[in-house]
Amino acid sequence: MMNPKSVAVIGASRDPNKVGHIILQNYIDNGFSGELYPVNKNAAPGEKIIGLTAYRSVLEIKKSIDLAVIAVPAPIVPSVLEECGKAKIKTAVVISGGFAEVGNVELQDKIVEIAKKYNIAMLGPNCLGIMDPLSKVDTLFLPTYKLSRPRVGGVSFVTQSGAVGSTILDLIAKEGFGLSKFISYGNAAYVDEVDLLEYLLHDKQTKVIVMYIEGVKRGKELIEIAKKVTKVKPVIVIKAGVTEEGAKAAHSHTASLAGNNEAYDALFKQFGFVRAKDLSELLNFAKIFSSENLPKGDRVAIVTNGGGTGVLATDAVYLNDLKLAEFSEETKRELREVMPDIVNIRNPLDLAGDADEKRYSDALSIISKDPNIDMFIVIALFQTPGADSSVAEKLIYFKKNIEKPMIVVTTGSDFTQTHKIMMESSGLPVYDSPMAAASALAELYKYWKYKNKIL
Amino acid sequence: MMNPKSVAVIGASRDPNKVGHIILQNYIDNGFSGELYPVNKNAAPGEKIIGLTAYRSVLEIKKSIDLAVIAVPAPIVPSVLEECGKAKIKTAVVISGGFAEVGNVELQDKIVEIAKKYNIAMLGPNCLGIMDPLSKVDTLFLPTYKLSRPRVGGVSFVTQSGAVGSTILDLIAKEGFGLSKFISYGNAAYVDEVDLLEYLLHDKQTKVIVMYIEGVKRGKELIEIAKKVTKVKPVIVIKAGVTEEGAKAAHSHTASLAGNNEAYDALFKQFGFVRAKDLSELLNFAKIFSSENLPKGDRVAIVTNGGGTGVLATDAVYLNDLKLAEFSEETKRELREVMPDIVNIRNPLDLAGDADEKRYSDALSIISKDPNIDMFIVIALFQTPGADSSVAEKLIYFKKNIEKPMIVVTTGSDFTQTHKIMMESSGLPVYDSPMAAASALAELYKYWKYKNKIL
Repeated sequence: MMNPKSVAVIGASRDPNKVGHIILQNYIDNGFSGELYPVNKNAAPGEKIIGLTAYRSVLEIKKSIDLAVIAVPAPIVPSVLEECGKAKIKTAVVISGGFAEVGNVELQDKIVEIAKKYNIAMLGPNCLGIMDPLSKVDTLFLPTYKLSRPRVGGVSFVTQSGAVGSTILDLIAKEGFGLSKFISYGNAAYVDEVDLLEYLLHDKQTKVIVMYIEGVKRGKELIEIAKKVTKVKPVIVIKAGVTEEGAKAAHSHTASLAGNNEAYDALFKQFGFVRAKDLSELLNFAKIFSSENLPKGDRVAIVTNGGGTGVLATDAVYLNDLKLAEFSEETKRELREVMPDIVNIRNPLDLAGDADEKRYSDALSIISKDPNIDMFIVIALFQTPGADSSVAEKLIYFKKNIEKPMIVVTTGSDFTQTHKIMMESSGLPVYDSPMAAASALAELYKYWKYKNKIL
Repeated sequence: MMNPKSVAVIGASRDPNKVGHIILQNYIDNGFSGELYPVNKNAAPGEKIIGLTAYRSVLEIKKSIDLAVIAVPAPIVPSVLEECGKAKIKTAVVISGGFAEVGNVELQDKIVEIAKKYNIAMLGPNCLGIMDPLSKVDTLFLPTYKLSRPRVGGVSFVTQSGAVGSTILDLIAKEGFGLSKFISYGNAAYVDEVDLLEYLLHDKQTKVIVMYIEGVKRGKELIEIAKKVTKVKPVIVIKAGVTEEGAKAAHSHTASLAGNNEAYDALFKQFGFVRAKDLSELLNFAKIFSSENLPKGDRVAIVTNGGGTGVLATDAVYLNDLKLAEFSEETKRELREVMPDIVNIRNPLDLAGDADEKRYSDALSIISKDPNIDMFIVIALFQTPGADSSVAEKLIYFKKNIEKPMIVVTTGSDFTQTHKIMMESSGLPVYDSPMAAASALAELYKYWKYKNKIL
């Protein structure tokens, strides 16, 4: 499904506003290198859709097809899927809505039966489908000007909701970190989160798994596979429907009954899921897990060019159950030698408002050798006179040369954003606020403890 | 101080990298319409600095001066301030650092003594000073390309930390909401947060007060003035140094001893301060308080074009102690008449992924009349096929015609950001995540309860 050599787009329409047309167009635009077959039951013999010969049924194609993308009205899906089975297509993504999520449980049961009969791995229905920037698979019926596609990377994102999925995907692209697989599984009628976790466990490109879950049907199996996965790679989860009313809303949406907040909380902790409370945390956590090694302790060094922000960062460290590192005597002595008198030699290390590239460099050269430090929060406020691109470059240099987690906090408008993008595109995770930075580091440390059974 | 007709910049240097030079340049660039006097003790007779005649001392100017901005080395500040007193200057901003924050308590006491002797309202030392986009006062020594200046508006921002102050100011500019006064008061040697709150209570341009506080010296007076202010206008506070280590860091930074987290929490609640936990909350809360009427109840209506985001918003509403409104029978009947069958008539109202301007318009026309609703969260995901600028325009229209709080949630990259800016610049508060939206509405409601003594 994720790396097909040939794809049939069933419901490929001549109308450029129709889902099937957009999907076909996206495959072409992305430069998909496999075979593409538009299928439209109303196609005239020899008719072409976006320059490709159209077929009235997959049975007419007479060639091996790896993946069927189905975007036809719900009542027609069973017959189309039946034809896929007869054509020996082994994977199908059913984009079409109009099944259990609107009460049409029978129709959904019917397509599951067909999928089982022909042994078709069926994703959906009622989903956005899949995207893989490496294999160029892209069933998303949203044009790229509305929904930016991320670059190739190590984060795989599994989502029950298409809406949440598309916004997160768009944000992943905006934040500049890379994607391995995007999988929107909708009603989870056949392939569900358990199957997807199992698949991603073995997928070599996937370093971090991010999940949006509304409801879980196979709880026991989820626990089993989750335990296996979290031993190997981190899984960051946002669970929707954690309040009674939220669960009701989820039920009317993907027809899944959501569970109790506290129960999920305890459960997730038990098998090492990293739980995000909202979309911003989901992004913040995905960013750090995709770019950082795990810290081997909880001792944080803070380097700053703004005193107040250093105070906020110190609060944030302790409020997230981390602590400030105690600089070694050697570190203190060396810092005292090179730092100007206005700099107090302590952690947080306030380099003062006139700190420039040299002062950051001097400080980081010294403290990066200190064995008493497990991770670094470097605050660089680009509003100050001394902070410019050379500071950003130096931070990128140290990030590449320090094996411990190092993250940057910077907050501001255009000038700051330019430097933020510069650092992030070089693999340095950047956060807007000290609290976001510290909570991300805390999750990283918690996961290290989980993996090492210290908890 | 905030609306001077004449300003002396003491320490105005010929060197464009010096603080005094940058301040003078900013006054000129901002189009300050009053008289400007550069003062530099090394000025040659008749010498000009940035085209303005320079004086060696304020005593040479022989004209009435409303404000002295002092940016000279700390040891010289006493003599300069003494001259200001003799020249009958009644307000002074001491930008210079090198006082209590580096242990130089005596020097600081000395300038306070001089300020008292001559009855000079002295801000600082060790501060960024003041900015008022209306009167064009701007003592910030940070160039505008690094630190964007906000437009004129109703938010006044009082900050002990220059670093935090400058980043927040930059963010206020980025988020597009307007500023009344910016006041960075540094060491609070003479003018402190109590005086500033009293001033802003009576300032007609100020609708919302935002404060960054590290330590408080006059606790009793702060409580008294706070009680008066919060009856009239909201005060949003971020308190730094709320952990033991954070308090220590704060002490070494502005020489103020910070208090205990829980004590401040209880205290702030008691006199109606809105407390922000981090910089993002500070911005989120300032945004809603500056653009919204207070809600008269806790019943929220959610309208969405993404099911999952609606579920997350429902959770967020209840996790923030608000609740979903129950639509009136009339609302339900009218909605059923105009909505397509795929739309479930319930709250959250999921308009479905193909919702366009007309569907949003139909829904909002009906529910905006419903007396069972106190406030609105409208989710508009611009990744979807039907959502475009016409939807954003319609939301702006409803915002102007609904007297209850209405906020928008939209999440995504470039296409989304364009529409976010479009809506925000029209006074519609926009949030990135359902959680941020709900927590902002919850603070608005809490403040209404506080003002109405329901709490």
